[in-house]
Amino acid sequence: LVTRLTESALYRHLWSCAELDAIFEEGARLQAWLDILIALAEAQAEHGIIPESSAAAIAVGARVEALDLRFVAEETRRSGHSTLGLIRGLMRILPSDAREHVYYGATVQDLTDTWTSLAMKAVGGFAWRELRNIESTLLALSELHRDTPMLGRTHGQPGSPITFGFKAASWADEVRRHIERFRQGAPRWLVGQLAGAVGTLAFFGESGLAVRASFCRRLGLMEPGVSWLVSRDRVAEFVHVLAMLTATLARIGTEVYELQRPEIGELRERSRPDAVGSITMPHKRNPEVAEHLVTLSRLVRAQAGVVLEGMVQEHERDGRGWKAEWAAFPESCLLSGASLSLGADMIKGLEVDAGRMRLNLEAASFSASERLLSTLASRLGKHEAQQLLQQRLVGAAQRGQSLGDVLAADDRLSGQLQGVEVSELLQDPDTGFAGAMVDAVVAHAGAARSQESDEWP
Amino acid sequence: LVTRLTESALYRHLWSCAELDAIFEEGARLQAWLDILIALAEAQAEHGIIPESSAAAIAVGARVEALDLRFVAEETRRSGHSTLGLIRGLMRILPSDAREHVYYGATVQDLTDTWTSLAMKAVGGFAWRELRNIESTLLALSELHRDTPMLGRTHGQPGSPITFGFKAASWADEVRRHIERFRQGAPRWLVGQLAGAVGTLAFFGESGLAVRASFCRRLGLMEPGVSWLVSRDRVAEFVHVLAMLTATLARIGTEVYELQRPEIGELRERSRPDAVGSITMPHKRNPEVAEHLVTLSRLVRAQAGVVLEGMVQEHERDGRGWKAEWAAFPESCLLSGASLSLGADMIKGLEVDAGRMRLNLEAASFSASERLLSTLASRLGKHEAQQLLQQRLVGAAQRGQSLGDVLAADDRLSGQLQGVEVSELLQDPDTGFAGAMVDAVVAHAGAARSQESDEWP
Amino acid sequence: LVTRLTESALYRHLWSCAELDAIFEEGARLQAWLDILIALAEAQAEHGIIPESSAAAIAVGARVEALDLRFVAEETRRSGHSTLGLIRGLMRILPSDAREHVYYGATVQDLTDTWTSLAMKAVGGFAWRELRNIESTLLALSELHRDTPMLGRTHGQPGSPITFGFKAASWADEVRRHIERFRQGAPRWLVGQLAGAVGTLAFFGESGLAVRASFCRRLGLMEPGVSWLVSRDRVAEFVHVLAMLTATLARIGTEVYELQRPEIGELRERSRPDAVGSITMPHKRNPEVAEHLVTLSRLVRAQAGVVLEGMVQEHERDGRGWKAEWAAFPESCLLSGASLSLGADMIKGLEVDAGRMRLNLEAASFSASERLLSTLASRLGKHEAQQLLQQRLVGAAQRGQSLGDVLAADDRLSGQLQGVEVSELLQDPDTGFAGAMVDAVVAHAGAARSQESDEWP
Amino acid sequence: LVTRLTESALYRHLWSCAELDAIFEEGARLQAWLDILIALAEAQAEHGIIPESSAAAIAVGARVEALDLRFVAEETRRSGHSTLGLIRGLMRILPSDAREHVYYGATVQDLTDTWTSLAMKAVGGFAWRELRNIESTLLALSELHRDTPMLGRTHGQPGSPITFGFKAASWADEVRRHIERFRQGAPRWLVGQLAGAVGTLAFFGESGLAVRASFCRRLGLMEPGVSWLVSRDRVAEFVHVLAMLTATLARIGTEVYELQRPEIGELRERSRPDAVGSITMPHKRNPEVAEHLVTLSRLVRAQAGVVLEGMVQEHERDGRGWKAEWAAFPESCLLSGASLSLGADMIKGLEVDAGRMRLNLEAASFSASERLLSTLASRLGKHEAQQLLQQRLVGAAQRGQSLGDVLAADDRLSGQLQGVEVSELLQDPDTGFAGAMVDAVVAHAGAARSQESDEWP
Repeated sequence: LVTRLTESALYRHLWSCAELDAIFEEGARLQAWLDILIALAEAQAEHGIIPESSAAAIAVGARVEALDLRFVAEETRRSGHSTLGLIRGLMRILPSDAREHVYYGATVQDLTDTWTSLAMKAVGGFAWRELRNIESTLLALSELHRDTPMLGRTHGQPGSPITFGFKAASWADEVRRHIERFRQGAPRWLVGQLAGAVGTLAFFGESGLAVRASFCRRLGLMEPGVSWLVSRDRVAEFVHVLAMLTATLARIGTEVYELQRPEIGELRERSRPDAVGSITMPHKRNPEVAEHLVTLSRLVRAQAGVVLEGMVQEHERDGRGWKAEWAAFPESCLLSGASLSLGADMIKGLEVDAGRMRLNLEAASFSASERLLSTLASRLGKHEAQQLLQQRLVGAAQRGQSLGDVLAADDRLSGQLQGVEVSELLQDPDTGFAGAMVDAVVAHAGAARSQESDEWP
Repeated sequence: LVTRLTESALYRHLWSCAELDAIFEEGARLQAWLDILIALAEAQAEHGIIPESSAAAIAVGARVEALDLRFVAEETRRSGHSTLGLIRGLMRILPSDAREHVYYGATVQDLTDTWTSLAMKAVGGFAWRELRNIESTLLALSELHRDTPMLGRTHGQPGSPITFGFKAASWADEVRRHIERFRQGAPRWLVGQLAGAVGTLAFFGESGLAVRASFCRRLGLMEPGVSWLVSRDRVAEFVHVLAMLTATLARIGTEVYELQRPEIGELRERSRPDAVGSITMPHKRNPEVAEHLVTLSRLVRAQAGVVLEGMVQEHERDGRGWKAEWAAFPESCLLSGASLSLGADMIKGLEVDAGRMRLNLEAASFSASERLLSTLASRLGKHEAQQLLQQRLVGAAQRGQSLGDVLAADDRLSGQLQGVEVSELLQDPDTGFAGAMVDAVVAHAGAARSQESDEWP
Repeated sequence: LVTRLTESALYRHLWSCAELDAIFEEGARLQAWLDILIALAEAQAEHGIIPESSAAAIAVGARVEALDLRFVAEETRRSGHSTLGLIRGLMRILPSDAREHVYYGATVQDLTDTWTSLAMKAVGGFAWRELRNIESTLLALSELHRDTPMLGRTHGQPGSPITFGFKAASWADEVRRHIERFRQGAPRWLVGQLAGAVGTLAFFGESGLAVRASFCRRLGLMEPGVSWLVSRDRVAEFVHVLAMLTATLARIGTEVYELQRPEIGELRERSRPDAVGSITMPHKRNPEVAEHLVTLSRLVRAQAGVVLEGMVQEHERDGRGWKAEWAAFPESCLLSGASLSLGADMIKGLEVDAGRMRLNLEAASFSASERLLSTLASRLGKHEAQQLLQQRLVGAAQRGQSLGDVLAADDRLSGQLQGVEVSELLQDPDTGFAGAMVDAVVAHAGAARSQESDEWP
Repeated sequence: LVTRLTESALYRHLWSCAELDAIFEEGARLQAWLDILIALAEAQAEHGIIPESSAAAIAVGARVEALDLRFVAEETRRSGHSTLGLIRGLMRILPSDAREHVYYGATVQDLTDTWTSLAMKAVGGFAWRELRNIESTLLALSELHRDTPMLGRTHGQPGSPITFGFKAASWADEVRRHIERFRQGAPRWLVGQLAGAVGTLAFFGESGLAVRASFCRRLGLMEPGVSWLVSRDRVAEFVHVLAMLTATLARIGTEVYELQRPEIGELRERSRPDAVGSITMPHKRNPEVAEHLVTLSRLVRAQAGVVLEGMVQEHERDGRGWKAEWAAFPESCLLSGASLSLGADMIKGLEVDAGRMRLNLEAASFSASERLLSTLASRLGKHEAQQLLQQRLVGAAQRGQSLGDVLAADDRLSGQLQGVEVSELLQDPDTGFAGAMVDAVVAHAGAARSQESDEWP
């Protein structure tokens, strides 16, 4: 039974990606839960809380394939308890002398919070790789187009020149900060939960903390100082980082969407031969992925708000915020997975039209106005020059004149300028330190990359 | 493949309800889409755009059971187009001379927006029935407990007395306003979309508007004045009404959650014999549904924000906000469906402990302080009396004294009061116009109900 | 002391408007509060709760000019009570025998909720007038440009032709629905609050409901069935309507922002001679207002979420959601006021470049592709024609060919078409029912306007 | 003119704090802007772009006291430019030969973004100190009440025992992670902006980067690799950390609000002699601050969403998201300032009623059920014991029996237990590793504190 369009066989590729599907898919998730129960049993056996033989039997028997999921679902509904159905299902498939030793003293949240940490680890590992791939592509674009001039645009209007490499470097730099956030966040996020009823581990008698240590170690997670049943900043921060990275990809998508307008034509998504843009307007080629990156970002942002709200917890366990994570956390991860994989692919296939960039720059002759102002500023005073130029240029631009026309026709202006300056102004776009900033970003990223692992954490 | 916990066979009953599942389930949704295509074909045949025979063949053949969904999914991915996969799938199962006449001149949004309206109609119909059921239950509770006294509480602290009927009437009144919103919103929401490429219906030549009229009529929808491809206030308003009604149910849930604390013990969710509150603390009986209503409300609220954001559309079609609805609209509906069905059931089963209410009221003797103030106000002046009582009562309450103790011990106070007033004060809770307000709510709802249909719209 | 940039003397014109400033300004707000206390005293005198002479003295003396605001502020902080400072300040300026009769038996929320309703009335009245003005302007634009052809655009890419009137009609229609929402919402929103400590009006003895009726009548508000201290859907709905109308204005702003790009150049904000677009790029003319409408809409949307969350209230008074309204409600109103007044002005001054629209349409010859498809559909079959055209056109468009070129060069295509069809296709943009939809919107709005008042409610 | 209640003289103490007011107050903010212009002039003089004498004159003359703010405001409105009014105002008060050298080549965003970084530095410094103070208090509470037993509560229902120190340690641990976030975020956040028109620093000729370096150094900020005009993750992350810390304080506030209910009575806000809880119910003592912390958190959360949305920027400057920061960033800081200062004070004054905690624990005898289960688990099997106890205890608890009663009356249960176990169970609450977890939190915090500065960054 599939009711969410995001889960539809027809559309799920737009709302998730294969690698994250493999983590969150129901069977995989249940097996991950069982693996946590196995680790628990082994840790408990290690400290004499349950027999070694039971732990061994659980390790062998706790297989999702063996579970009768219909029975599990029914018992879940009947008991109204989140995992009692699973426990009862498990007990049916375990040898009788191990049955009582599975899920021993733990609670739902021990299972699901620990799984959340494992999922953060897997999703973070995926994001780390994708972000670093995207960074690579962006750095290569930056270097390739370090000196490819194009119009800068502010408030949607042509401004001074930049280079395309400069634009790409700004993206790369933002991506780098997300990579850094993953690096720094790992010790806060990848922390197991074994807390028991109210967080004190009282069930396990004297070996509670030792069991927890073994449990976490077996799962590759760190130990918390204190149980975090009602301390959800870990999840809130992680999801916010996802929301930020999808926002960065939406920023790149927005740029492609706008610059792919044929009236501008400077960037284009990769053309795919089988792609059909429109079934009524057969000439169309739409920036589909670019657009979708914005959609995904909005949805993840909404979930980030939910998880943040969930931090305001009460007492020792509070289902209101915690259960909201059941919906919001996987949703955020899956949507971010779509964003990362679609985004990486879009960026890799980006078609950069340097010729059109040059043409647009030439057509927008007023883009040299900052340089003209800079030149006149030292002669007339900056603010006086600004006022003069404002007077002369705004209307002229509106009337469709070119900067050359204006300069040729205006004695006051041309009297301040030498011929060589004018022709330089008109022919040679001044991209300032665009290239140098590219170099700085590339150097910084290079240094960081050389010191970090390909894998996270 | 199921990756969202909300879609899990184990947990989906918490995140949707059977009636809405039946609307949004993939097969049902696809059949609803096909039904729209059938209506389109019939409308087109009516106006001579396609042959009658094709319309008839489409009406017979467009069955979801006949579609090869794997093929449809593959073609969807291959073409990158939202419905071309479906079209190709359809063409394979239609007689050859009808193939070219299916989905004739329409676009994705004609299909999906019209479906959204149909879904709003179905979901609204469900909500209407559930809200009216809930209202019935609440009105009955209000009347039954019109005069059942209990502590009012403000800022979490015991205040003046109310009646439980008064509390329930405040809920019922809020529910009534949601019913009213559905009634008023229907003509704005239940509007078909047949717009074509950019909204002008140019594809259909001279009969465009006539085709649209027929199309809408066949589907039981109204016609828009102008195509609403980029005018999404309809959906934004609808989802906000859902968000408001889930907030109302969360408000009721919050009340149950708090008053079910054994330290208070005035309300309890229905006990269910099979329910297991905790697998580590076997004595527990948790307000599970009450808590979950808050969770659901948060999630719907987040989606309401997404859809509202989606109103800021660009040009004649804008995938960013529209595709966000693909995720947000079904999600909002399904979660609201869970809220309505779980909420209706919780309210129906509510256990009201009038004895405990009375005991708590007696224990909190200071709850008579407003009445005492009112009595003294006419003798000492209101603000002076307030200051005097503030001085005498706050500390006493803190020290665990009763109001009777204070009055007995304080000459200034007792000098102002007659014995009969004191005993009335201490024995007879003054619930003011609580009962009269119940009557007003019941009367207003009764009048409204007598004039409205059991079915919506 | 001003700390919010939105309150800065330099910038407040961007975050509010004069008419709403006059409502929310501290002095005006305090006087409105005092007027509520006057109405309360008069209602109480009418029913013998306080002496007529006191009510008269309060009516004369409760003037904000007479208050020592520094004292009021100090007492507010000292008491930690929201209005006790005001009460104490008032008592100092009232004649001694009236002092005890001001704010008699009422609570903070009676005052502030009633003020909220009065503010909704004033803000709604303003919004009503502005929305109807905006509608007028948009309807006039629609009619004037009923047949002004321009490119439709979907996903940011040129599509089939529309008319500018069609675009404006879509805006007008959305605005009309907001007007309708105000009309329908009024009876829910404009409701006084006189509730007392916990909502039961117990303080006032037998005349509680009668006092409330008089109180509401004097203030021009309706009476609630039951006190709404913890029933905040009224405010949530009102703010959501504000959020929706700012979203509509943001939608219009987005369109202007995009179409003002000189690469497109079809719309422009009014030029203002003194305006300075950039102090470093003196040629610039930015779509400042268009851009700002988007900003305002985001901020109001965020507040709408806060107020919606605030509906989940507890017990008989709950400061958490209610006090959040203290920040969110005025903020929403003021920002919406800025949006309405700036938006109305921008729309009124909109420069429509019909010539450029025509040029862009001609340059984008492929915009006739839908019509070409429609023509071929009846000959080749719709889906076959689509596939054929998709093959021929997408690449050609990319290579910069024109539709004329393609048709001339392609035997298969030209073989299907007659010369007259081709030339019609290339020369005469088919805007379908754009004009007819304009007519429908104008007619619907006209009918509605003729039946409604210029004033709200 | 003050229109926001949050800026009202009467109420601003609830929506900000004195230390942050001093940063954001209009005069202070304008002086900070002038200080940035001074640093710019000095950096430019250093590299020969403007004369040393002008830089010196600007350093002396750029004083907010000297500005005619009415003129500045008028020119701001007249020019429609955010800082041209300020420039013109400045030019009037500077010596004539320096006038043209102020604000030389910079843009609005250079000024306001750099100010944002300086404000982040000041606000972060404040937050750092307050968080560390709060942590101190919480650690002291944790240690003092390391072994003070109280009821743990889950889902609002009494559960197994904890200690109050354990609860406080969980708060402290969360606060510690926020401190860590500030430490790690500083290098990302405290970065100056000198970018010019489109980010390339072209105006300044060859010394652009050198000027920027000097400019940043003079202001105590780091240099960015590439201009961050449209890269807003810095601000988004900072505001999210604020939102998280206000959520933590709201979590603590929620706990106080709930445990201050007289039916529970375990915690109370400090009593303040002048405080008035209610003007109609004079006995009341409300958890005012606790409640308000929740309100503040909601408002900051909403702003965090705005700033996150603002990351999706376009081209080289995008007013939509950036100007939203003008409202959202100060608002977030000020509200967080209120939260930190009110929260710190509330926590410092917290009244912990260890006696009542003990009494509540004793009254809730079933809180020993986990321990009982643990004991029986090893004899009967865990799940079988759970089922048995569930059967015996839920109803008994409901009927008001005590655990002792149940054990005495039930042969099956008492047969499994020794007398000594029963009496231990009933008399000696088992708080498990609560104390050990306190120790771990205290040790971890101590180690971290010993290595970090009292000042940030």
